[in-house]
Amino acid sequence: MLKVAIIGPGLVGGALLEQLVAHAKSQFFATLPISVVGLINSKKMAVTPTPFPEADLTNWKAAILGATAAPANLASFVEQLAQLPGPVALVDCTASDSVASQYPSWLTKGLSIVTPNKKAFSNDYALYHKIKEISSSPSGPFVYHESTVGAGLPVLSTLNDLVRTGDRIVKIEGIFSGTLSYLFNNFSIPGAASTFSECVAVAKASGYTEPDPRDDLNGMDVARKVTILGRCAGLDIGTDTLPVENIVPEALRTVTTADEFMQRLPEFDEHFKELNEQALAAGSVLRYVGLVDVRGGQSAVKLMRYSLDHPFASLKGSDNIIAFTTERFPNPLIIQGAGAGDDVTAFGIFSDLIRIAERVGLQRVHL
Amino acid sequence: MLKVAIIGPGLVGGALLEQLVAHAKSQFFATLPISVVGLINSKKMAVTPTPFPEADLTNWKAAILGATAAPANLASFVEQLAQLPGPVALVDCTASDSVASQYPSWLTKGLSIVTPNKKAFSNDYALYHKIKEISSSPSGPFVYHESTVGAGLPVLSTLNDLVRTGDRIVKIEGIFSGTLSYLFNNFSIPGAASTFSECVAVAKASGYTEPDPRDDLNGMDVARKVTILGRCAGLDIGTDTLPVENIVPEALRTVTTADEFMQRLPEFDEHFKELNEQALAAGSVLRYVGLVDVRGGQSAVKLMRYSLDHPFASLKGSDNIIAFTTERFPNPLIIQGAGAGDDVTAFGIFSDLIRIAERVGLQRVHL
Repeated sequence: MLKVAIIGPGLVGGALLEQLVAHAKSQFFATLPISVVGLINSKKMAVTPTPFPEADLTNWKAAILGATAAPANLASFVEQLAQLPGPVALVDCTASDSVASQYPSWLTKGLSIVTPNKKAFSNDYALYHKIKEISSSPSGPFVYHESTVGAGLPVLSTLNDLVRTGDRIVKIEGIFSGTLSYLFNNFSIPGAASTFSECVAVAKASGYTEPDPRDDLNGMDVARKVTILGRCAGLDIGTDTLPVENIVPEALRTVTTADEFMQRLPEFDEHFKELNEQALAAGSVLRYVGLVDVRGGQSAVKLMRYSLDHPFASLKGSDNIIAFTTERFPNPLIIQGAGAGDDVTAFGIFSDLIRIAERVGLQRVHL
Repeated sequence: MLKVAIIGPGLVGGALLEQLVAHAKSQFFATLPISVVGLINSKKMAVTPTPFPEADLTNWKAAILGATAAPANLASFVEQLAQLPGPVALVDCTASDSVASQYPSWLTKGLSIVTPNKKAFSNDYALYHKIKEISSSPSGPFVYHESTVGAGLPVLSTLNDLVRTGDRIVKIEGIFSGTLSYLFNNFSIPGAASTFSECVAVAKASGYTEPDPRDDLNGMDVARKVTILGRCAGLDIGTDTLPVENIVPEALRTVTTADEFMQRLPEFDEHFKELNEQALAAGSVLRYVGLVDVRGGQSAVKLMRYSLDHPFASLKGSDNIIAFTTERFPNPLIIQGAGAGDDVTAFGIFSDLIRIAERVGLQRVHL
């Protein structure tokens, strides 16, 4: 039995709870039992030695974290989980730096970690290294973070398999932002008629962007994903040194509000139109990509051109696409599909939890 | 320590041995030690309680299976391995039905199985079911067969993750034959000028086909892969009931030799040219695909048309491509890349061995 506790159960955590409740009723639960024993949000928390009943989980906000729950205290929450018998995995659904910085201490207490939170793996290298060091024992605890890149797409598991089996990564190239995928898939295709600012406005209205679209257009989210992939491929890179092309026009970087930014963005439509027309005239389209250049040392985040028959050019909607070029795969191994969304992010977390449940399977037999 | 024995070490097994020797020298061996303790081919065999030294493995044909080795006896080989302490995985690199039929008895002896041999998973359902039943215990032994579909591409692991986490598969559609991928990628693209028979001749001369290309064109290899995927998705399907479009012209199915087949194939170029021109006139190309139609019940292997902006249309070389359409991925999750070749097949086997090594990690600690 793998016991699971969720930190910051919001949309993704809620989707995960739904999937776990369905799992508990499925045939797979018999061989891979996973149960929820803890929930904490910014206000309340609850830990239980016996798993929460299904009825409470389907109504967790009121039934588990309602008015009668204890006040939130992360240190005490973790301490109580560490006292439970058997393996426990903490799922960090926050995007918090300070939560991520505590992973080493939690691992030291024997707690495994699964998370879509990119911070621990893309901030300073010392934290990353410490986490990898503690979690590299074959007897656990374990750290899995598939959902930090491409949500549930099998990106990190594939990269890890390539690296561990001795393949040599040449480069990893991809469209890692659902927002920027959607934007350029619509703005830069033959025959498209919308201006860049119109595309951004539609993306914002459809909920594809951050509240302030500059948080997507500045490339920092992509830079974090490139950092994570690069480190998994053995590079010592970080967002502080990676060249990142910020496509927010310089004059708009300092305006105060998102509204003002949106209002003034049309002033720069001519600039983007020109870039796009140059690309199209050359039989190409524009795509905003992250590049982990293991061989060439030119890792970067930038706007690039791809010819119309390239897989990046035919991408649809807000899909992600990741191409691994390696010694064994000179014609790259490519993975594409939805790289954002609550259900697919929860799917990635759940797959990671299953990997841990499989790895502690024998512990369950022996203990 | 996971002990590995290889049945039928030929090109794929040889590639695997090379990768394992490199692994033994890498940083990953410390946490995931995998060693080779047995080799058997049609003539000779050798089993050792302590792993074969690296020098012997790099020269295995002479050093391990040379004249002084014992005569091959599969039953005795398996028996000796079952007597070794600790976990042992058998790698079946044959394509043999009779070897595959012995998996249940090997599993009962506690031996895990990893294989690119499709037979056990695509023949009668009873054998498949028996294997799944014995290997579903969380404490092992384990069966992994990633390389049976798309070689080392993460196809079955992804499908298993989707199914186990409760996603609902709508359909799985793909180009599963490197040979037929190569053929139609070259024959059916706008502007291509070669006849169908010329494309087959080039593919044959380049080593992309079976010695008799009819063994590719009859679709049976694709049917086996569709069966494996369908069963992993929960369908009770088999090659005996699956509709398979055999694109070998009927008049050429009974000619005796591959040479005669090749000589007479040009008689049918007009037929293929017509099909192709019809497709191209409709803005499409021809691709030979396998379809697991979980929702609609119309699973099949057949020649289909895809519009030019479909990912199947822009496939290159002899790559495979697999699209999973599910409830969570209505816009499909797609995986593409080399789906045949010794190195990438060995990579798939090695990844499976690592999964087993991870799952027995605690056993190593406890025993």
